[in-house]
Amino acid sequence: MLSEIRIAGFGGQGVILAASVIGKACAIFQGGYATMTQSFGPEARGGSSSAQVILSSDPILYPYVTKADVLVVMSQEAYRVFAQHLKPGGILITESDLVKVNGMPQGVRAFGVPATRLAEEIGRKVVLNIVMTGFFTAVTNLLDPEAVRKAVEDSVPPAMQKLNLQAFDKGYEYGSRLILEGGEPEPIALESV
Amino acid sequence: MLSEIRIAGFGGQGVILAASVIGKACAIFQGGYATMTQSFGPEARGGSSSAQVILSSDPILYPYVTKADVLVVMSQEAYRVFAQHLKPGGILITESDLVKVNGMPQGVRAFGVPATRLAEEIGRKVVLNIVMTGFFTAVTNLLDPEAVRKAVEDSVPPAMQKLNLQAFDKGYEYGSRLILEGGEPEPIALESV
Repeated sequence: MLSEIRIAGFGGQGVILAASVIGKACAIFQGGYATMTQSFGPEARGGSSSAQVILSSDPILYPYVTKADVLVVMSQEAYRVFAQHLKPGGILITESDLVKVNGMPQGVRAFGVPATRLAEEIGRKVVLNIVMTGFFTAVTNLLDPEAVRKAVEDSVPPAMQKLNLQAFDKGYEYGSRLILEGGEPEPIALESV
Repeated sequence: MLSEIRIAGFGGQGVILAASVIGKACAIFQGGYATMTQSFGPEARGGSSSAQVILSSDPILYPYVTKADVLVVMSQEAYRVFAQHLKPGGILITESDLVKVNGMPQGVRAFGVPATRLAEEIGRKVVLNIVMTGFFTAVTNLLDPEAVRKAVEDSVPPAMQKLNLQAFDKGYEYGSRLILEGGEPEPIALESV
């Protein structure tokens, strides 16, 4: 099992924390291996943020994602830059209020979640990254939700744990409902445009 | 210009934050490029932490460090695992109270700093990683110290900025003094055992 994931958005949306939670869940709470690579460059100076996570059942020799199995995007710019690097048959996950999807490779399955709005509903927009992480957990089925919950708990200060776990559950429930209602995920054109 | 750096120690020593500060300094405050890769795996479950940083004047195609130009170690275990992957002619930086150096490749230059003790002197052991970062900045001369200071400021919560800048300065001064006094750094056997 080897899954290559890219998460991208604005600076301040918590892209790196989301990536780190997913890596930890796999490696520390589920007995696998994971790497997380973060690039700093002109795009970071421009306010973009992106991280690559590799999850594997075996040690990882080459930690760089060229084509992603799963792409999580929280900004239109991130979508524009990275959508072309999604594998055919891959999964696209969008912050559906912030990203308008158009022109994806055939066979990509797309899932959208209004993570910012859901985060605001529990009182703090800042946890949108963890809402996205919960949603990711439900729709990709790559990780044990309990391992991800533990990784969330482990990755935030004690005073923020309750809020972040709520955010995780909110995103996870939204994703589970989407999967249940939709059966197989919808093709992209019906899903997100 | 391309420099490959590995930073390693215990969990809780702030290895990842130090790596991220160094990457940011190069890419965001000095106009270069940087990547930071973090591995989660059995070593993370055992309480070790390690990060790889690449600094470059050009975009980075392959973000994985196989042999490091600079190795920063804050635990004996990290030294044991990674010392063999230091390039000939590379720089070894140790937390000198925690790491006993023995058997390094010829030509490696070694610098030690009692970072934990220096951090305790300014009141908080937890900033040893930023003391190390200041020391790294002084002895490697890879980055503009002002860029690293800005990256420190940018990477910690406002309430922690003053303490972390003090920690940076403390490590930087210790390193600068070492360089001034020693002229060329001492060969390893004289330096750290």
